[in-house]
Amino acid sequence: MIEPFAAVEIIAAKRDRKELSDPQIDWVIGAYTRGAVADEQMSALLMAILLNGMNSREISRWTNAMINSGERMNWSALDRKTVDKHSTGGVGDKITLPLAPLVAACGGAVPQLSGRGLGHTGGTLDKLESIPGWRAFLSNEEMLKVLQETGAVICAAGAGLAPADKKLYALRDVTATVEAIPLIASSIMSKKIAEGTSALVLDVKTGSGAFISDPAKASELARTMVQLGKDAGVNTRALVTAMDIPLGLTAGNALEVAESVEVLAGGGPSDVVELTVILAREMLDAAGITGKDPALALKDGSAMDYWRRMIKAQGGDPDATLPVAREQHVVVAANSGTITTMDAMKIGVSAWRLGAGRSKQGEAVQAGAGVVMHAKPGDYIKAGAPLLTLHTDEPLRFARALEILEGAITIVEGGTVLRLPLVLERILE
Amino acid sequence: MIEPFAAVEIIAAKRDRKELSDPQIDWVIGAYTRGAVADEQMSALLMAILLNGMNSREISRWTNAMINSGERMNWSALDRKTVDKHSTGGVGDKITLPLAPLVAACGGAVPQLSGRGLGHTGGTLDKLESIPGWRAFLSNEEMLKVLQETGAVICAAGAGLAPADKKLYALRDVTATVEAIPLIASSIMSKKIAEGTSALVLDVKTGSGAFISDPAKASELARTMVQLGKDAGVNTRALVTAMDIPLGLTAGNALEVAESVEVLAGGGPSDVVELTVILAREMLDAAGITGKDPALALKDGSAMDYWRRMIKAQGGDPDATLPVAREQHVVVAANSGTITTMDAMKIGVSAWRLGAGRSKQGEAVQAGAGVVMHAKPGDYIKAGAPLLTLHTDEPLRFARALEILEGAITIVEGGTVLRLPLVLERILE
Repeated sequence: MIEPFAAVEIIAAKRDRKELSDPQIDWVIGAYTRGAVADEQMSALLMAILLNGMNSREISRWTNAMINSGERMNWSALDRKTVDKHSTGGVGDKITLPLAPLVAACGGAVPQLSGRGLGHTGGTLDKLESIPGWRAFLSNEEMLKVLQETGAVICAAGAGLAPADKKLYALRDVTATVEAIPLIASSIMSKKIAEGTSALVLDVKTGSGAFISDPAKASELARTMVQLGKDAGVNTRALVTAMDIPLGLTAGNALEVAESVEVLAGGGPSDVVELTVILAREMLDAAGITGKDPALALKDGSAMDYWRRMIKAQGGDPDATLPVAREQHVVVAANSGTITTMDAMKIGVSAWRLGAGRSKQGEAVQAGAGVVMHAKPGDYIKAGAPLLTLHTDEPLRFARALEILEGAITIVEGGTVLRLPLVLERILE
Repeated sequence: MIEPFAAVEIIAAKRDRKELSDPQIDWVIGAYTRGAVADEQMSALLMAILLNGMNSREISRWTNAMINSGERMNWSALDRKTVDKHSTGGVGDKITLPLAPLVAACGGAVPQLSGRGLGHTGGTLDKLESIPGWRAFLSNEEMLKVLQETGAVICAAGAGLAPADKKLYALRDVTATVEAIPLIASSIMSKKIAEGTSALVLDVKTGSGAFISDPAKASELARTMVQLGKDAGVNTRALVTAMDIPLGLTAGNALEVAESVEVLAGGGPSDVVELTVILAREMLDAAGITGKDPALALKDGSAMDYWRRMIKAQGGDPDATLPVAREQHVVVAANSGTITTMDAMKIGVSAWRLGAGRSKQGEAVQAGAGVVMHAKPGDYIKAGAPLLTLHTDEPLRFARALEILEGAITIVEGGTVLRLPLVLERILE
């Protein structure tokens, strides 16, 4: 095969701050996927992109080339409108669990292809796998069947979906080229567009516990992704939301499933309920579905009915007892006062180190491990009262988790709390 | 083996414009050489270095780490002072050929480890290999013997010399990371310092036919290399010299050997003679050798005697007829007038395309291929008079060479010539 381009010329162009042409982008993504561009060439190009940027046309073409490297799913056989949500990930962010059945209960179809956790933020599939019997891997036919029967499906992306992104993601991870907005945006959006949803709501997290702590950068990422969605004919909108403190009162796999079930039962922590309802309303609005109130669907038990059906359809037992970690350690308040800060990153990393997350791809996670928060910023707590309970199957992990939690929580008598608003920005186009 | 660093952290540091520490640099070069840092990680780091730079401490440490990846040669057994020269390469730059025996004739010992051509500039070893019988590969013992007997040796660097640089050079070539001053300077100087010379003169070329066309960048490279040499205890100085038009009247392997022999016989083009003598004086001065006039050594036949001995000591026959290309094509002047420009890059690329150079490592070159110039800028030429003769074994190559030469030479009746001075800058520290 005679190649129309030389990889080294494309790398040199981006190194010299030139725009890449559409044929150059199509070729480099295709050739990389089939192995005609080497890893060491692609990583040099990725670093040049990270440092010199891409304009909106280049990002759009790059995303399209990644979608075209594999299949694009099609849900036209459904009689419901498809709508999905993607979160960039945060500590205690279990929103997908109550949200998917809630939107289904209100008339939408949620075809969510989800992922596993790497680092301090958990993965939706890891959480659901703590439910006995639940299966993350479905064929396309099974996925359609679950979606038709229950209105929502959450499963792993197949190998045929954006294979270029899979290869690029693994490369970025080892070459310090993860943190580039064009690369983050194209990675997320290529998968979501290939997934075939008609509408999409993005929850872009910002604050100390988020992947992107700077709100201005989070906003830029959100705008870039909304534009990519619209370019591909997906009705996309984004919310930039707070991740300065953990979401809800749990961080960990089974612990977060239990909290999600509480929300579906009409209870649960107010911040989780609030964000779930806000995102459900955005999703229904983006899909053009009217006449249903998500807050009511949480109260009247219909969302819980959809959850139970969705879990059962993927082999899970919604009535099974969730795994509990073999060991617990209670952290108590050293003094009385108002909790003024609770560092999301430190809570997330401690849950990870307790066994809830993995350090490299393919590692097993502990279903029961994690952190339960007994109070949150703004709450008044008395000296000696339980502040956190740490859960793990391996008590040797407590020391490392406690070390990480050093300074994570501040308690001040008469202290006041400075927090980000839950929703910082709403981006419609 | 537990590694003290993670490659991804070192890449991220340079990506974020941080200084790399000495232990980080030592580790990353060593680990890359032994394969513990992957090519795709090193190429991302190289691109970050190219775009974000390194300070003088980092460049110095990087160079040292490359030297320490292999052996450092030692010439203390010699009773002569060692001094070498390195040129960054230009079209028609055959200066090493007359220069090494000339400096030997004046009392120096020249232990030159040289390379092959890649791209539009020729390689010294390729040129010398056009002499029947001449061998580029010598053991360290053979190299010492030739140097003791003849005062000069030009041969290929062994595998034990700066192996990190060999691996990095091959990687840079395919990842568009050649053109970074810290990487060029450390690559050249690691080899020259490991070569064990006590004094060194750098000929940094600038102008349209040079690797670095911008004189300010050439000057920066020269200063960086002089500092690296001094840091390593090598008495180093640099000249920034013109490469806007080809050096001498030939570009090609055997063609350049023949021209070099003319210079050693006391004749040859004036620019080649002038630069050879200037560089010889710098080398003798840097080595602290006094009392000999290189211009005289060219006239009195002593340099030629040293040349003949050096060629014979490496198996070559200085009296053998040099290879001649099977086909010639003469380009004549389209109009009468003064030659005002002669594009060095175009002449170099046409010689390359005629078969004098290679497009990838390991390709064979034609000994006889190349370009002979019958006139140079400043000369008056009549319409129809021979301007260039193209030489190749494969006449199909003429068309491509002629296409490249389009617009390379301007002839203007009453025109005046704007040229760079032969030596633009002399850098002693």
